[in-house]
Amino acid sequence: MPSNTLGIHFTVSSFGESHGKCIGAIIDGCPAGLHLSEADVQPLLDLRKPGQSIITTQRKETDTVEILSGVFKGFTTGAPICMIIWNKDSDSRSYDEFQSKPRPGHADYTAYVKYGGFNDFRGSGRFSGRLTATIAMGGAVALKILKNYLNIEIISFTKSIGDITMDSEDISFDTLSKNRYLNDVRCPDPNTALRMKDSILSARREGDSLGGIIECLVRGVPVGLGEPIFESIESELSKGIFSIPAVKGLEFGSGFRGSSMKGSENNDSFVIDKSTGHIITETNKSGGILGGITDGMPLVFRVAFKPAASIARPQKTVNLKDMSESPLIVTGRHDPCVVPRAPPVVDSIAAIVVLDSCFKSNLIPRVIK
Amino acid sequence: MPSNTLGIHFTVSSFGESHGKCIGAIIDGCPAGLHLSEADVQPLLDLRKPGQSIITTQRKETDTVEILSGVFKGFTTGAPICMIIWNKDSDSRSYDEFQSKPRPGHADYTAYVKYGGFNDFRGSGRFSGRLTATIAMGGAVALKILKNYLNIEIISFTKSIGDITMDSEDISFDTLSKNRYLNDVRCPDPNTALRMKDSILSARREGDSLGGIIECLVRGVPVGLGEPIFESIESELSKGIFSIPAVKGLEFGSGFRGSSMKGSENNDSFVIDKSTGHIITETNKSGGILGGITDGMPLVFRVAFKPAASIARPQKTVNLKDMSESPLIVTGRHDPCVVPRAPPVVDSIAAIVVLDSCFKSNLIPRVIK
Amino acid sequence: MPSNTLGIHFTVSSFGESHGKCIGAIIDGCPAGLHLSEADVQPLLDLRKPGQSIITTQRKETDTVEILSGVFKGFTTGAPICMIIWNKDSDSRSYDEFQSKPRPGHADYTAYVKYGGFNDFRGSGRFSGRLTATIAMGGAVALKILKNYLNIEIISFTKSIGDITMDSEDISFDTLSKNRYLNDVRCPDPNTALRMKDSILSARREGDSLGGIIECLVRGVPVGLGEPIFESIESELSKGIFSIPAVKGLEFGSGFRGSSMKGSENNDSFVIDKSTGHIITETNKSGGILGGITDGMPLVFRVAFKPAASIARPQKTVNLKDMSESPLIVTGRHDPCVVPRAPPVVDSIAAIVVLDSCFKSNLIPRVIK
Amino acid sequence: MPSNTLGIHFTVSSFGESHGKCIGAIIDGCPAGLHLSEADVQPLLDLRKPGQSIITTQRKETDTVEILSGVFKGFTTGAPICMIIWNKDSDSRSYDEFQSKPRPGHADYTAYVKYGGFNDFRGSGRFSGRLTATIAMGGAVALKILKNYLNIEIISFTKSIGDITMDSEDISFDTLSKNRYLNDVRCPDPNTALRMKDSILSARREGDSLGGIIECLVRGVPVGLGEPIFESIESELSKGIFSIPAVKGLEFGSGFRGSSMKGSENNDSFVIDKSTGHIITETNKSGGILGGITDGMPLVFRVAFKPAASIARPQKTVNLKDMSESPLIVTGRHDPCVVPRAPPVVDSIAAIVVLDSCFKSNLIPRVIK
Repeated sequence: MPSNTLGIHFTVSSFGESHGKCIGAIIDGCPAGLHLSEADVQPLLDLRKPGQSIITTQRKETDTVEILSGVFKGFTTGAPICMIIWNKDSDSRSYDEFQSKPRPGHADYTAYVKYGGFNDFRGSGRFSGRLTATIAMGGAVALKILKNYLNIEIISFTKSIGDITMDSEDISFDTLSKNRYLNDVRCPDPNTALRMKDSILSARREGDSLGGIIECLVRGVPVGLGEPIFESIESELSKGIFSIPAVKGLEFGSGFRGSSMKGSENNDSFVIDKSTGHIITETNKSGGILGGITDGMPLVFRVAFKPAASIARPQKTVNLKDMSESPLIVTGRHDPCVVPRAPPVVDSIAAIVVLDSCFKSNLIPRVIK
Repeated sequence: MPSNTLGIHFTVSSFGESHGKCIGAIIDGCPAGLHLSEADVQPLLDLRKPGQSIITTQRKETDTVEILSGVFKGFTTGAPICMIIWNKDSDSRSYDEFQSKPRPGHADYTAYVKYGGFNDFRGSGRFSGRLTATIAMGGAVALKILKNYLNIEIISFTKSIGDITMDSEDISFDTLSKNRYLNDVRCPDPNTALRMKDSILSARREGDSLGGIIECLVRGVPVGLGEPIFESIESELSKGIFSIPAVKGLEFGSGFRGSSMKGSENNDSFVIDKSTGHIITETNKSGGILGGITDGMPLVFRVAFKPAASIARPQKTVNLKDMSESPLIVTGRHDPCVVPRAPPVVDSIAAIVVLDSCFKSNLIPRVIK
Repeated sequence: MPSNTLGIHFTVSSFGESHGKCIGAIIDGCPAGLHLSEADVQPLLDLRKPGQSIITTQRKETDTVEILSGVFKGFTTGAPICMIIWNKDSDSRSYDEFQSKPRPGHADYTAYVKYGGFNDFRGSGRFSGRLTATIAMGGAVALKILKNYLNIEIISFTKSIGDITMDSEDISFDTLSKNRYLNDVRCPDPNTALRMKDSILSARREGDSLGGIIECLVRGVPVGLGEPIFESIESELSKGIFSIPAVKGLEFGSGFRGSSMKGSENNDSFVIDKSTGHIITETNKSGGILGGITDGMPLVFRVAFKPAASIARPQKTVNLKDMSESPLIVTGRHDPCVVPRAPPVVDSIAAIVVLDSCFKSNLIPRVIK
Repeated sequence: MPSNTLGIHFTVSSFGESHGKCIGAIIDGCPAGLHLSEADVQPLLDLRKPGQSIITTQRKETDTVEILSGVFKGFTTGAPICMIIWNKDSDSRSYDEFQSKPRPGHADYTAYVKYGGFNDFRGSGRFSGRLTATIAMGGAVALKILKNYLNIEIISFTKSIGDITMDSEDISFDTLSKNRYLNDVRCPDPNTALRMKDSILSARREGDSLGGIIECLVRGVPVGLGEPIFESIESELSKGIFSIPAVKGLEFGSGFRGSSMKGSENNDSFVIDKSTGHIITETNKSGGILGGITDGMPLVFRVAFKPAASIARPQKTVNLKDMSESPLIVTGRHDPCVVPRAPPVVDSIAAIVVLDSCFKSNLIPRVIK
């Protein structure tokens, strides 16, 4: 199984480097008959692209996507869909130093050892957050199929930045969805968003960085997705989510907090939804998953991002050439906090994984009409 | 890819049901030449088996493992190793009710829908914690290979039960390893262990249950394991860990707490280990993983288990026969807290995944001598 | 991917050794709700088992299959189905010699090198034709699903033994199906069958062995199975077929003979089937496959088996202990021709592969009712 | 597993269409440190490209390959290598007709049904022989690694065209290698080559086409490649070979002819190679494979290609629009015989599969130096 491919039935393969000629993705297993053009993909890429506001990196990329294969007369053909973005504004000057003086918190050192020094280190190469654009290429397709054919909707938003957290529990899916992209930090609560932005700017002024938490909700999920034991829906989502750079934690439903509750608090009672006659749970501590299988309630999970590793403050590292301890100043253009750019990526991973599970459950035909 | 199989090169496939004839595992991809007998597997199963103390289920199973294939003259042959445990003490009386009245927090409802009511619901069937014994079969083999051929050691222990948490940060690996199995709750700190045990007993008296957190450390990991983008070591570990029943959260290194730190606090400086001359990090906020690749420091991760779903208190559910809301009293023999039985299982998943990564990196020959 | 597993969605994993405790299979991905018991599997195993006639090995095995998991109240549950046969009549006396003096045409030498001498060589271990019984376990399940839910039927029969060949082109599927098991050699033409049997007996008298060709027909295949480029139906069938011991050739439709025809002879014209109104081809030189995708005509392929490698005549080999050239007399109980026992195995591989392709095309629900 | 990907460890994924913007391949799992540029790939593509002689299609394509990713400073980085060829000389005028009037022997009908009419039918789309160039992209890389690091060499050549066959048994590997590309038909015997060429030209004059047989030899293979039961070296090679358009048969060693031999004729005796002291076989009826595992002798297999389906003679088909039987004249530019363009493709498949098996056996490090 190629390690740059996500999914079993609906697969997304990533290629390209941050400062190479291009970045791209191959989407294989997409049903034939889906109406698809660049216009379906570009908006998600635009939400992720750099240089959008003062709280993100100032690298300027239009990130204009081009579909090279797999689409004919406006519809998918069932063949692999290759999409590509040509890199434009790469500035590799600062990276030569990092090859011999690995940045703390980055992949410089581990990649150097693993690939014997042959890795393309410019702009962090394959380890750059820029590669998440290739995930979003697949995500855009998956999101469209889920929405149009199964009425499944996915929204991710910024739940916390540093120590500032939004309380989202009593806010409706629709409100969260409507408001999440109204501001630069992607937090659906405008007041919290302002405080978050201040906090990021303040960290940047100090030459420092912040992390945060993204929450993701998936609405409209049918009962029965997930293939226990080892392909539970949590297993598959986690495999995808931990592929996103800087992610160090993941919890479903009540998660870590739930581990300190009692069973009587954490169990979700089954009841009848009076309006539909369907079985639902009164609460959703399980995050919509029981025994690794979706239970029809919204999926709820939270993703912890570490603070961005590139900071302007002096740090300590080891010079690989002479194995001497050495100070390091990281220059270049970097995000002081990657969380505001992450919601489209979390959306994408969730969409790819949920869609893949739908294929396993035979919910999507091989030809869509 | 069969969904009951974990791993790519070194694979463990689980079969059997909690109250069926047997449970078992097939281990494929094990190198030839490993000295192996039931005596290598039984101890890990014994640490996991039920009925060991007053804080676990009273089901009595000797869980005696038998190797059916793949071993010849005391050594592995390179062929699939089938191991089996014959079930002895199953009592399925209470489960007929759960087929029509799904227990809150359990897989009864989702399995019923997914498998059209054909699933073996006795003792929770495939969803029983009992199936983790099949994971431990593979884990025992993986742990032996890692220890003997790569000097990699794995220890999991109980970090918290309910709201009682052990502070383990300043305790050495060796001490944690030595003390973790000295008591029923598998917490290496004796005083905390006593309080945890009281807490479990108290919850059980109230007809309630508790959850908790397992911490896992992996020592001796070489630099370079993990295959980004989508087979990062975090991705692979998470896929395995979320296959364990009741797991709802996972974090590496500083994890969720790290998401509220600043970069300057969370980055681990590279320094020279004076005693070995090797590069290490001064702290280990990353949990031994940078860019999805191991950095040579110990792997550190924490696993959140929800409180056991089977509680003696009255709960609400829906009767699937007539779709009426209905009270439910769960009887039968259950663990008031599954955490104390989980360390061998977390060890096993970690061992299988790390060993599989070692195969990807060509660190293990196909014939061991 | 474990190398003892066949299939992607519907998988069959083989374990066990010829002279070990048992042989067995795990079937994963079988839909829930299939009525299944040992009675569905035993007949296919009986057609394959040894000791049935004077032209097969005289090893006596009842090959009684037992289902250990995955079936509950007479129906499949969606969980892995483990089936097992306990070995009874193994006689390993003659095999110690082959470990140091590899038999020509056998896997003794290659297995010795590959597994460093640790392989279970008794009765050829994993390389014994006996292991095809584990394929038949999966095959029996696949054949039942194909027949009952998609009306797809598969028949294999002996097309040639040595230089005696049956002309089957103008004989109907039903006649071939009815007659193929009426005699020991499994050739649907009684007169040819007699000559084949004489030929085998004559070879055995000379201390020699014969090979032959199995033809397989699959009727009722829908248009559209197969996933080009690399999972064409030919690719998937060939991968399975070449897993059968002693197979050295495979051709579809006009095959090798077709390679010397002209396009105008080998192309199959499309016409309307007057009785059904469906598109069919006038001839079937393509073997029911165009562009790697089934075209609705019967699949037709032929499988070449080499003559059995175990012969009573003196042969030359090399003693691995001292690297000296050495004469060898192969004793023990062996088939003078494996072809008569192969049709159930070819049926099984075809069934597993075709069913797996049906899953890829979403033709089988995850719950059968 | 994406169906346009070949291999497990070293994978080649194909994308693009015959008359689309481009065709390309992603090579994942290539070790870091391999010196690689377009100059390593172009020669193999040149041997395969159209328009080289009067016996191939007159489509003019330079087939200039461009590497887009995975190579840095002249060396592979361990990241996915994307290669691309931009299509230049496509003429899609004749294909509209084939969408409603499927050509006999082509994938027009099966693709139409499978993909619901959405497939890109121009120039046969994904089913064009043109796509074998994407296989050759991966093949060129695999061939270089095998040659440079394991001294494994692969040669394919034209063994027969129509009913004209070259006797190659007593000709040395080196002679076959030296002579195979000296003429348009790629047959190492000059006299036979002339007759083959005449035969092709004669068929074309008649508006007809020819098939043929490619033989492939692999020299320098170590003992022990192949992973029985289901990933035998024959299984893996066959899966790849049957992905090549127009292939309908495959045999190893004595193959179909061997099935009519006696065991005493077909068994290969083990002897000592006096010059090296190694064990070899006196003959090579097994084609270098025993029990699905390489035995150190050259691999030998033959591939049957059907006559090209596109012929100028009138044929019968069914009009899909009104389901009427209809005559068809196939126009456009086509190969009267695809066999002369196949050797680089068979070489490529063999190289990819053998290299993948080498990775399974740990014979290639992840970083090459």
